[in-house]
Amino acid sequence: MAGPGMLPAPVADLRRDFHRHPEVGFCEFRTASRAAGTLADLGWDVLVGPDAIAPSARLGVPPEQELESAWERAAASGGDRRFLPAMRGGLTAVVASLRGRRPGPVVALRADMDALPLQESRSAEHLPARQGFDSLWPGTMHACGHDGHLAIALTLAARLADRDFPGTVKLLLQPAEEGGRGGAAMVAAGAADDVGLFLALHLGMGLPGGAVCPAVSGLMGNAKLKAVFGGVAAHAAMSPDAGRHALLGAAAAALGVHAMPPVPGHETRVNVGALHSGTSSNIVPDRAEMLLETRADDAAVSEQLEARVRALLAGVASSYGLSLDVELIGAVMPASSDKTAEAIVAGAARAHHIPLAALTRPPASDDATAFMRKVQGNGGAAGYLGLGAGNYGPHHSPTFDIDESVLPVGVRLLEHIVRAGAAPAGAGAMPPGAGAMPPSVSA
Amino acid sequence: MAGPGMLPAPVADLRRDFHRHPEVGFCEFRTASRAAGTLADLGWDVLVGPDAIAPSARLGVPPEQELESAWERAAASGGDRRFLPAMRGGLTAVVASLRGRRPGPVVALRADMDALPLQESRSAEHLPARQGFDSLWPGTMHACGHDGHLAIALTLAARLADRDFPGTVKLLLQPAEEGGRGGAAMVAAGAADDVGLFLALHLGMGLPGGAVCPAVSGLMGNAKLKAVFGGVAAHAAMSPDAGRHALLGAAAAALGVHAMPPVPGHETRVNVGALHSGTSSNIVPDRAEMLLETRADDAAVSEQLEARVRALLAGVASSYGLSLDVELIGAVMPASSDKTAEAIVAGAARAHHIPLAALTRPPASDDATAFMRKVQGNGGAAGYLGLGAGNYGPHHSPTFDIDESVLPVGVRLLEHIVRAGAAPAGAGAMPPGAGAMPPSVSA
Amino acid sequence: MAGPGMLPAPVADLRRDFHRHPEVGFCEFRTASRAAGTLADLGWDVLVGPDAIAPSARLGVPPEQELESAWERAAASGGDRRFLPAMRGGLTAVVASLRGRRPGPVVALRADMDALPLQESRSAEHLPARQGFDSLWPGTMHACGHDGHLAIALTLAARLADRDFPGTVKLLLQPAEEGGRGGAAMVAAGAADDVGLFLALHLGMGLPGGAVCPAVSGLMGNAKLKAVFGGVAAHAAMSPDAGRHALLGAAAAALGVHAMPPVPGHETRVNVGALHSGTSSNIVPDRAEMLLETRADDAAVSEQLEARVRALLAGVASSYGLSLDVELIGAVMPASSDKTAEAIVAGAARAHHIPLAALTRPPASDDATAFMRKVQGNGGAAGYLGLGAGNYGPHHSPTFDIDESVLPVGVRLLEHIVRAGAAPAGAGAMPPGAGAMPPSVSA
Amino acid sequence: MAGPGMLPAPVADLRRDFHRHPEVGFCEFRTASRAAGTLADLGWDVLVGPDAIAPSARLGVPPEQELESAWERAAASGGDRRFLPAMRGGLTAVVASLRGRRPGPVVALRADMDALPLQESRSAEHLPARQGFDSLWPGTMHACGHDGHLAIALTLAARLADRDFPGTVKLLLQPAEEGGRGGAAMVAAGAADDVGLFLALHLGMGLPGGAVCPAVSGLMGNAKLKAVFGGVAAHAAMSPDAGRHALLGAAAAALGVHAMPPVPGHETRVNVGALHSGTSSNIVPDRAEMLLETRADDAAVSEQLEARVRALLAGVASSYGLSLDVELIGAVMPASSDKTAEAIVAGAARAHHIPLAALTRPPASDDATAFMRKVQGNGGAAGYLGLGAGNYGPHHSPTFDIDESVLPVGVRLLEHIVRAGAAPAGAGAMPPGAGAMPPSVSA
Repeated sequence: MAGPGMLPAPVADLRRDFHRHPEVGFCEFRTASRAAGTLADLGWDVLVGPDAIAPSARLGVPPEQELESAWERAAASGGDRRFLPAMRGGLTAVVASLRGRRPGPVVALRADMDALPLQESRSAEHLPARQGFDSLWPGTMHACGHDGHLAIALTLAARLADRDFPGTVKLLLQPAEEGGRGGAAMVAAGAADDVGLFLALHLGMGLPGGAVCPAVSGLMGNAKLKAVFGGVAAHAAMSPDAGRHALLGAAAAALGVHAMPPVPGHETRVNVGALHSGTSSNIVPDRAEMLLETRADDAAVSEQLEARVRALLAGVASSYGLSLDVELIGAVMPASSDKTAEAIVAGAARAHHIPLAALTRPPASDDATAFMRKVQGNGGAAGYLGLGAGNYGPHHSPTFDIDESVLPVGVRLLEHIVRAGAAPAGAGAMPPGAGAMPPSVSA
Repeated sequence: MAGPGMLPAPVADLRRDFHRHPEVGFCEFRTASRAAGTLADLGWDVLVGPDAIAPSARLGVPPEQELESAWERAAASGGDRRFLPAMRGGLTAVVASLRGRRPGPVVALRADMDALPLQESRSAEHLPARQGFDSLWPGTMHACGHDGHLAIALTLAARLADRDFPGTVKLLLQPAEEGGRGGAAMVAAGAADDVGLFLALHLGMGLPGGAVCPAVSGLMGNAKLKAVFGGVAAHAAMSPDAGRHALLGAAAAALGVHAMPPVPGHETRVNVGALHSGTSSNIVPDRAEMLLETRADDAAVSEQLEARVRALLAGVASSYGLSLDVELIGAVMPASSDKTAEAIVAGAARAHHIPLAALTRPPASDDATAFMRKVQGNGGAAGYLGLGAGNYGPHHSPTFDIDESVLPVGVRLLEHIVRAGAAPAGAGAMPPGAGAMPPSVSA
Repeated sequence: MAGPGMLPAPVADLRRDFHRHPEVGFCEFRTASRAAGTLADLGWDVLVGPDAIAPSARLGVPPEQELESAWERAAASGGDRRFLPAMRGGLTAVVASLRGRRPGPVVALRADMDALPLQESRSAEHLPARQGFDSLWPGTMHACGHDGHLAIALTLAARLADRDFPGTVKLLLQPAEEGGRGGAAMVAAGAADDVGLFLALHLGMGLPGGAVCPAVSGLMGNAKLKAVFGGVAAHAAMSPDAGRHALLGAAAAALGVHAMPPVPGHETRVNVGALHSGTSSNIVPDRAEMLLETRADDAAVSEQLEARVRALLAGVASSYGLSLDVELIGAVMPASSDKTAEAIVAGAARAHHIPLAALTRPPASDDATAFMRKVQGNGGAAGYLGLGAGNYGPHHSPTFDIDESVLPVGVRLLEHIVRAGAAPAGAGAMPPGAGAMPPSVSA
Repeated sequence: MAGPGMLPAPVADLRRDFHRHPEVGFCEFRTASRAAGTLADLGWDVLVGPDAIAPSARLGVPPEQELESAWERAAASGGDRRFLPAMRGGLTAVVASLRGRRPGPVVALRADMDALPLQESRSAEHLPARQGFDSLWPGTMHACGHDGHLAIALTLAARLADRDFPGTVKLLLQPAEEGGRGGAAMVAAGAADDVGLFLALHLGMGLPGGAVCPAVSGLMGNAKLKAVFGGVAAHAAMSPDAGRHALLGAAAAALGVHAMPPVPGHETRVNVGALHSGTSSNIVPDRAEMLLETRADDAAVSEQLEARVRALLAGVASSYGLSLDVELIGAVMPASSDKTAEAIVAGAARAHHIPLAALTRPPASDDATAFMRKVQGNGGAAGYLGLGAGNYGPHHSPTFDIDESVLPVGVRLLEHIVRAGAAPAGAGAMPPGAGAMPPSVSA
């Protein structure tokens, strides 16, 4: 590669480059800057920094020190120096546009870029480990397919550089999808204001390899909370009664949260995903930090659930004599694909003989719903599609992987939609039957 | 100061130097090497490395990486390069001896050197912060008076350099007192084999400032455990039922441990002092690490308590479908001062008009009991004395402090004992009434 | 009323008689004997005792003493002495048949008869209390509409006494529907062997008053468990450490059971509905008894859930040093209405201009599924229909009630179906359009 | 026996009569009335009803219905009809006095009469079962030796009928010792106002058989609480989210209470001794009732502990959306024997060659402290003595028993003290050496 611009390269190579350099939410400095550089080199209009994301609308931004060390690591490991400065401090969104040769509506495609704070498997049964493209950065891993999403988007960008399509294509490369922390902030920066058709593609989802679920419904809303319990430290042997045991209160709260009742007829979830308290066995811990979340497939249920969890935390804190500080660090709203989007995706799939499939389990949350609700609210169409990518460990597990042979399928599908043009109600006309088959995509 | 040798200097200055550079157990590279250098400069025979501590008998040794970075920090911040090499890897004990001009038994004095993993208060009400000698190293603090213990020992060492005393004085400078991880390993290296009288002095303990409790009894035995619960990671929304939630199991175990019944007539304690699990709200955590301890003032009760805690951890792990690994990372035995030691200390206190006082609360554990049981088992005498050091935050809390004006009291008391000579049963004669008042000690 | 035979009487009067005399599962001596007597008086063939229910296939039969005192109470309060003897010991099922004048399949209608161990509201806002027909027997209440089900069935029986219908009608009056304890035992006695069409009607279910949900799907399977934790009693002050605290272990288990994860895409439930332990504050309780249940809308999920709960109970018992005995006291399988049954019910509803409605929440479990699976397995049709009965407190709450004006609707609907004849596949022909409107039913 | 008067009879026979008819606190109608009758027959002045106990100062009085049925049972099983009427409603205290022939102070002896709500062992290894004098009344048992205390008191009363002693002897026969519910109410009725020396004897206490601990110190204060959690009932499958789960909140509270830290240097206890909630597995329970207690050997610690438990209960109730009602149903204060009482008891023991022994475990609470504090406050002397009674199951366990051969030892010891006369400071003179040995006592 002759510089940070990453193309031309097979889509799988792009994915592996991102896979080896996983960056968590708002720390995607290397990933986002290289994507921005690549798109700029391809002739796309590229917005970064506050033009792409509203800084104060972000949720759950990591501490300054963590942002800074991630930025420096990116600078030292191939980040694109043209774009890194504007991203400093966690402004890691990219909005790239390309106007086609013909008039038409704006078609926006979302790709997320963040990885997870998870240690990747080093087992020889895990292909990235066996083939040596597993995470270079301990404790961080692309375990949800975002590396593949971005590789598809950039490959598509290269193919569309001929501008042989109606309307405008917009790539929404979002940071911090995990936790629902970046989407609304991009919406707040106006990234979805002019969009007539919005689509987000997600790999995996338990679908058969290469099959497409054209319209995912029931994406759950969620609230991510950070709860800090404050107690009183004391020597555990000499004066345990003088302490107020933050760890113990947090433990009781964790059990209480998980014992919340389900809501019949709805998918609901609670999870205490992290609990950190104390340093030494002989000190009564005076602080416990908890990361937790609630989810529901309905906005009202979601609100009730969050309110109930907050009440539980408050009561338990009080019962153990602890202070409590609860911060909302991520939030997404529930949403569903609409019929217009479904028809467009299903049509494209059929045109390419891509098999359709339904989800066997209800979907989780996705920050894409911030864009979906905005676009649908503006009278546009919005959809969320799944693309099966093989059977590996579950999403968010150390052995998650994707079958790279499906990446070109994703490229083809989206390319078809763009070239065909999209015509959701109220957002301009989409010529029926438009869009000749593009040349084949290499895996 | 013309080098790492730290004397002559007022005892409070020594204490402040250690206070600013707190090092946790087996990482006392700066502290121990500077102490060794000072003693060597004063003409004492100094043993370090495996001669002072049996490497494999240590418990709860930090990971290699942590040891190494502490070692490097010590090398860069005034550690004594003559002794640092032998200490590398956590061999941070010092055994220093000086033979008096007259025959007599071996009198050993224990001083511990380790700090705690605790963030020191920055409040202006906290004197070290107000006067600018608070910890330079975030997250680490001398919050148990060990800085004062070592300052007393070194000041005493300087005063005894005249060798005007009977028998031999031995300073046992121990690492990793917190957690009971270093004492037994020094005993295993033979450090207490020849000792006729052993004394350990501890500052604070809730005693009135400047008052001495000449014979602490009922020092609790304890067991420090590290428990690791292993679960199965999963996406918290898409497949929570596929996960096995290590955090939740650990939370249930924490509550169960704290709900253990007391044993009537005994002081018993349990504490889960740390619990760390998970990284993200949307992942079912597959690992939870817990630091916990049990204590009792009786060896049999202590064993039962530890066994019961282990059974509880195992049952809870099984109930949540988790694996469990429990490691003993620290252990001390209960012990009490004997009458011989009590008489010697009380006599010295009376000779200096130091008021006597009793503890108002039973004592905690101290790794000094490893030495005490060894010496008492050999027919020698062993005692543990408290010296009141003012009213500050409790031991192991961020506002713990000591009134430095009592440090010279400690020096005088121990000096009197050494110069008087000690005559425990079966370990040689101690001349009664020996020991003229030494010149006064500067604070 | 001139004897135990209860008819003719308005359907609401029948319901009120049952409402005032609520009897829990297998204790329905008064209820069942009066129903049997009424049916016999009407000329139906009546089976009771082992001919109606297989004694050893019953689950969760109350203790002998409880059965006996319920039997005696029934004998003293209007039970039908012709049938009481055969029911002694909890054989409280009734199978009543009437052959029509024309050939045709067997149409079976299930009505359940048991009440709940719940104290009925005495509030003036609660109509039964206001009008003086609330439960005469403290701690027991018809809070699920079974009183109405039976009143409908008996009213229907009277109307069908003209035998002007094809085939045979069979009333399956089942005991112990709550808990899923009686249905399978009636199936084991052969009660459903010859059935071509099976229908169970349930009042309430959150439906609009008077509206019918013609085909309930996703009835949950469940397992009801009784768990007994055995500990060691001890004086709570003198020797708490000698005790093994059954109450505490059961409390931990209750939290653990409720913290089980949901299974995405399925309705699942767990509930610890009762916990009883201890008698005095100063004794460590040596016994704790728990009633709990698991539910799922899928047989495999149901099995996994039950297995997981059992493992949790076992682990927690072990962690607290307790013995554990778990008994299955009730079990039902999941089932759904089939298309044939749906068509029959929906057709009848339309014929009577009864509005159709869908459930807004997924259904719970019903022991009717034991019959449904048997009939469907034999090639017959089986359905479960809901009939809205007004808005009162929720099912199983002290203020549950039914709007009696819908009872005649239920009678009319079922009468239409019977008179029309039912023709599920493989079970004989049902003449289309059969069944003239019967005379109106009084409320 | 020719009537309710029970004497003359061997002391063991008396004990067995009481053992077979155990009555819980404030229900001691048979026991107290027979004791009163016996004392009256012997010529003692007997006070019962409001003269012996202040009705409104009683704590934890059982419900009217329970009192009534116990009263009727007593009337039907040998209760003394002369005294039963005055005791109706739970006024089951007896104060009996006998003036000696010589002047002297008032010596009061306390005997408690209540049994425990515990099922007695039916094992052949349990002597009462083997010999057929085990409890006739299921679920109730003399498991703390009160049957023996009363047998000793009545035997002593018979022997003292000769009035050959100085001063006045007063028997304080108290109800509801368990739970600390009756003593303060007798004090409130003035029962201890004139007492110069108060003694309470307790059998068992882990002492060697026949040995006396002359002065028990550190009797713990306690608070007995009844906590009622109120939730919202709901169908556990159809609307669990509409419920508020009282059982679950109570379970969390039970764990939290038991996880309270100990107070170093003090004996402290907490116990949740009973938890009752729910009736059926398929209902979210709307009520949970808990009996719990706190104890400490110091009044201030006791108060803090109770306050902390109350705060915990309130917080947990709030966290689960529950109402909470906490009632104090029993309370005793801590107390210790004084030196005067100790000297008197030890002297008497030595005079009879009864071996002395110390407790090996700290004592629990005893309602006798209400009398002790009153008498000590008035300038009199008060003591609590233990008398070893063999090795059986622990107090409050189903196999607790006493070796009846020690009962005459108790009689002799107390008789000696009475006949010798007691001379505590400020309460009149006790003639030294008084009191010839009485004739031997039959077991």
